[in-house]
Amino acid sequence: MNNIAVKTTAAKNTATLLITCPDSKGIVAAIADFLYQHNANILHADQHQDAENNLFLMRVEWDLAGFNLLPADFEQHFAEIAKRFSMEWQLKLSQKPLRVAIMVSQYDHCLADLLHRHKNGELVCDIPLIISNHKDTEALAKFYGVDFHYIEVKKDNKPEAEARQFALFDQYDIDLIVLARYMQILSPDFVARYPKQIINIHHSFLPAFIGARPYHRAFERGVKLIGATGHYVTEVLDEGPIIEQDIDRISHRDQVEDLIQKGRDLERIVLSKAVRWHIENRILLYANKTVIFD
Amino acid sequence: MNNIAVKTTAAKNTATLLITCPDSKGIVAAIADFLYQHNANILHADQHQDAENNLFLMRVEWDLAGFNLLPADFEQHFAEIAKRFSMEWQLKLSQKPLRVAIMVSQYDHCLADLLHRHKNGELVCDIPLIISNHKDTEALAKFYGVDFHYIEVKKDNKPEAEARQFALFDQYDIDLIVLARYMQILSPDFVARYPKQIINIHHSFLPAFIGARPYHRAFERGVKLIGATGHYVTEVLDEGPIIEQDIDRISHRDQVEDLIQKGRDLERIVLSKAVRWHIENRILLYANKTVIFD
Amino acid sequence: MNNIAVKTTAAKNTATLLITCPDSKGIVAAIADFLYQHNANILHADQHQDAENNLFLMRVEWDLAGFNLLPADFEQHFAEIAKRFSMEWQLKLSQKPLRVAIMVSQYDHCLADLLHRHKNGELVCDIPLIISNHKDTEALAKFYGVDFHYIEVKKDNKPEAEARQFALFDQYDIDLIVLARYMQILSPDFVARYPKQIINIHHSFLPAFIGARPYHRAFERGVKLIGATGHYVTEVLDEGPIIEQDIDRISHRDQVEDLIQKGRDLERIVLSKAVRWHIENRILLYANKTVIFD
Amino acid sequence: MNNIAVKTTAAKNTATLLITCPDSKGIVAAIADFLYQHNANILHADQHQDAENNLFLMRVEWDLAGFNLLPADFEQHFAEIAKRFSMEWQLKLSQKPLRVAIMVSQYDHCLADLLHRHKNGELVCDIPLIISNHKDTEALAKFYGVDFHYIEVKKDNKPEAEARQFALFDQYDIDLIVLARYMQILSPDFVARYPKQIINIHHSFLPAFIGARPYHRAFERGVKLIGATGHYVTEVLDEGPIIEQDIDRISHRDQVEDLIQKGRDLERIVLSKAVRWHIENRILLYANKTVIFD
Repeated sequence: MNNIAVKTTAAKNTATLLITCPDSKGIVAAIADFLYQHNANILHADQHQDAENNLFLMRVEWDLAGFNLLPADFEQHFAEIAKRFSMEWQLKLSQKPLRVAIMVSQYDHCLADLLHRHKNGELVCDIPLIISNHKDTEALAKFYGVDFHYIEVKKDNKPEAEARQFALFDQYDIDLIVLARYMQILSPDFVARYPKQIINIHHSFLPAFIGARPYHRAFERGVKLIGATGHYVTEVLDEGPIIEQDIDRISHRDQVEDLIQKGRDLERIVLSKAVRWHIENRILLYANKTVIFD
Repeated sequence: MNNIAVKTTAAKNTATLLITCPDSKGIVAAIADFLYQHNANILHADQHQDAENNLFLMRVEWDLAGFNLLPADFEQHFAEIAKRFSMEWQLKLSQKPLRVAIMVSQYDHCLADLLHRHKNGELVCDIPLIISNHKDTEALAKFYGVDFHYIEVKKDNKPEAEARQFALFDQYDIDLIVLARYMQILSPDFVARYPKQIINIHHSFLPAFIGARPYHRAFERGVKLIGATGHYVTEVLDEGPIIEQDIDRISHRDQVEDLIQKGRDLERIVLSKAVRWHIENRILLYANKTVIFD
Repeated sequence: MNNIAVKTTAAKNTATLLITCPDSKGIVAAIADFLYQHNANILHADQHQDAENNLFLMRVEWDLAGFNLLPADFEQHFAEIAKRFSMEWQLKLSQKPLRVAIMVSQYDHCLADLLHRHKNGELVCDIPLIISNHKDTEALAKFYGVDFHYIEVKKDNKPEAEARQFALFDQYDIDLIVLARYMQILSPDFVARYPKQIINIHHSFLPAFIGARPYHRAFERGVKLIGATGHYVTEVLDEGPIIEQDIDRISHRDQVEDLIQKGRDLERIVLSKAVRWHIENRILLYANKTVIFD
Repeated sequence: MNNIAVKTTAAKNTATLLITCPDSKGIVAAIADFLYQHNANILHADQHQDAENNLFLMRVEWDLAGFNLLPADFEQHFAEIAKRFSMEWQLKLSQKPLRVAIMVSQYDHCLADLLHRHKNGELVCDIPLIISNHKDTEALAKFYGVDFHYIEVKKDNKPEAEARQFALFDQYDIDLIVLARYMQILSPDFVARYPKQIINIHHSFLPAFIGARPYHRAFERGVKLIGATGHYVTEVLDEGPIIEQDIDRISHRDQVEDLIQKGRDLERIVLSKAVRWHIENRILLYANKTVIFD
């Protein structure tokens, strides 16, 4: 393939620390001093303070070359600071890329897009598994060398179908499930099993046109812009935290079919950004919202 | 002022014919032949066919210099064609610009914008009247030489207040009422009196966040884009035909106040486009939608 | 594949007439009457008048079902009108889709995108031929069932290489050549051979950053937006008529690699629109500009 | 006026520290510790590392309530850190808003926009002075209560005219000069006198269409998007660091006059953002580029 470097390349060896805690004085000083004491070469740092909720959120990424703590020892040494400021924190290592499963039905534009970006080095993760309730995308999966599993979903077999899906997620050691126009509604059990680990693309500008057939309803309402929304899946349909949205302009000349066509480009771009930000550990969640450290 | 020419300038002397009828063969041939026979110099023509509703919609504008029919005689000569194709039609003359009233409350950004565009020659219409339920914008009205009427609206005086408003619309011979962030809900009687003659700016991307405090609700939902919608006012709140919409990107760094600030730019641009297209006779209405012949 | 209908579907059987002529009274009447006399069911009609250049341009598409002229007889019957108004005209039949060749080097994102859209029914044309000066995209071509020809281009073999390319275009009966990030400059002979038949994607917002390495130069200049431009190729590099452009926002956080990554999405969307409008006969050329009858 | 709160309101009492220095380990730790030791309540902090140029840039804003250093004593206490890391730094106090002069010719849309935003509380600065080479905008200046000075500029009086301008800048104690469609080219002496203190709005998407009549040249080239660029003025025309850019879509239907009209909205929005970011101390300059800490 072409050797295109992107922000996060596979070659690099970095650690990323994500922190959420009540806001108070001295947090940055404590973290910065800790990293300095351990000889961290900081590559990116970004933070956000939510005054209304009195929250402090931070993402800091550093080069592990020269860092004088082993990742395995990080928790022990960081514990005092974390406790002092009541932090929730996670440490992510670039050398352990996330393992992503893609679920898809018949529309294959998002799937083809994600697989092509992955091949191009734009999505730094492993994609070992595709699950579909149709066989249409099997050839595409094969072309990109990803295991494809067909699991039929009918009215009366959803529990068994999902049980087979769960088994595959376990077997492939999946960290993130991407619904790339997967046209089945997940059970509450499914959603509860993978909190903050399921990303969906909804083909409207949420909260407009929640639910089914958004392009048809947008057409009937006579809107002048259509949209797409990438969001985490939670128990309430299309109400999860929004990661990214985008829109395109339409006119009276556009029929429903044109909305669907234009929407495909929105869906591809929005979903790929949502997935990229997740696997690059750029998203923090709070109050049903996302902070994107882009 | 600066001598800026725009698409529709006050100087020109044109007629614009707007047509809606069932689609059938021969419509364009009949209209084009009629105009040719009367020596019309066509400046712009645009049409739209809605296959689903079997509708034909057209806008044609021609120079009245050389046209060998007096506007007063147009109806008589056009009647045969209109009847043959069951047309609804209107003839608009550039020499009779629309008379526009603006209603406003305390937020004056849309008002200031409309008045400045009018002065610059961008909005070719007469603006003889501003009505407000606050006195804040009186100085601005005076600066631009427009009559200002303060009409207080309280819980228990809406019928009287609206009666005074109706009297002013009559007195000033108003063709179009623009709600430029007028924060009172109009009565059904008001709306019914001025069908397709009231344009409102709603500060959200309809149909998301219908009703009050859309920026606050957008903030709470955590959307990544905010919007504004210019629409005709009908009996159901925020459900009228949409004329124009636009959006701006926001991030987790933006608080409600930032949404409000960014939204002001959207509101100004969207409302001014909606008003301009209306006064230039570029809008046709059908099926609760608009066709914009831009 | 999924059965997605789009504006121009393969199934339909229509004729599209494209006209350019000096503007004068009676043109529309003459054309509309001609089509009406021959029982045409007009599906779309759009026109443009360029007052400055005194030009009239029109696109009209009608259903051939019921039309009482054979396409082969059209010219003979239309000749009188064409002569009267000094028209340049073309008649295009949906049953004879254009035959498109794609030329590509190592970056395969535009190629993969075009092939996927074609498979999805979004690009209604034949794509029988891919030519590349690298072998990287051979597998992709094979997956989509398109003939792939590798033609090496070196400093000293361009005439021979182009001769082989011309032979392939002849052999495959090619109507349109799409340069999908083909990184070789075509000879003047090549360009002259295929006037208005070569579409290129340039990775900048022309006329900014004409020539090589536009993303690097955009980065150095510190622009806040990057762009892509789809245009016809003419003898002067990057100076041909522009078909479509789009931009994306960047910030100081974006390095050259990020510009390249963001640019890929622009390139894909802009090039695919340019190709689609060409094969749907929506583009008219005059004065080194395009009219897009969208 | 309406009581709209924005990101930076006049009421707040904050200090903003802007830093540029070679990148090295320990910078953030040193700054954060310094602020913590002096009991600063940090409101916003943002930083940027330019790996290619080995630069570190930072903006940090804190509440002065509770901060235990007087601004006048800041330099003395901060000197050691500044020296250790070879910092260029500035300390800005919200209680000392910038004093802004606006220069304008006949087109008044940017001026009207800036004055209205200032009145609305969106631009937190003082605007005591307007200078124009035409008298057209005098009434507008008076309406907003700003001193207006008419200084004619002819071919042979530029040195004297500029001398009068310099005297006014001195007299009004001006920190920032905004060229709001001021159609005279400043002398090298003028530019050299006010480094990084002059913001201009150019009515094209730089570097496309540098120089005069950009809309006319955009029209002739047949671009599909027009743009506007807000930038600092340096000795080379239209080559200064870009602060903000935006674009709007045009089509073949748009004549030069339409480009000019659409461009006005771009110019207003782009210029107002550039001015706002400057007066809120959100811009850092390096390598002829800007970092915007938004």
